[in-house]
Amino acid sequence: MAVLVQVNFPMQGPWGTEMAEAFRGLAESINAEPGFIWKVWIEDQAAGLSGGIYLFETREQAEAYVAMHTERLAGFGITDVTVVYSDVNETLSRLNRASLKAA
Amino acid sequence: MAVLVQVNFPMQGPWGTEMAEAFRGLAESINAEPGFIWKVWIEDQAAGLSGGIYLFETREQAEAYVAMHTERLAGFGITDVTVVYSDVNETLSRLNRASLKAA
Repeated sequence: MAVLVQVNFPMQGPWGTEMAEAFRGLAESINAEPGFIWKVWIEDQAAGLSGGIYLFETREQAEAYVAMHTERLAGFGITDVTVVYSDVNETLSRLNRASLKAA
Repeated sequence: MAVLVQVNFPMQGPWGTEMAEAFRGLAESINAEPGFIWKVWIEDQAAGLSGGIYLFETREQAEAYVAMHTERLAGFGITDVTVVYSDVNETLSRLNRASLKAA
């Protein structure tokens, strides 16, 4: 069963197209993480918040990624990271047109 | 630009296949909401938590849905609802294989 992870943290930018340029290499590396399916990158410039919504194949793979990623964020000076793991109700998610596979 | 909404709240069940049966009609109605793109239904039976990750076309449409949905949840006795709205960084999300369209 797929596992969804909500990762949220304060960030001071970059935003939008600059954010996309700055984190392109990081995003490419994430595609190679074990069990990784997809990530939606989120940003709120007005509130100074960023993060990501991830889908992983298993809880263990999600936890291994988050442990590594939290350490990486700390290296960027980002330490106030909140993480919520959830199971996915696949029947209802499919009914509501969510893709549970890599696009 | 698509808007992602994280909705989280305590829930005492039902879970899994029973949850899918109980909320099938609700899920079908969500497909008809203005600006709705997709929803991932989340559940954590051990922690007693549920919610959803939504993608909407605009912030206004997301806010209108959440106002209605929060009232509906209160009718189920669920009042401790947290909501986070974010812009989506579409370039990075596409690079990380997320679908920003209805499946």
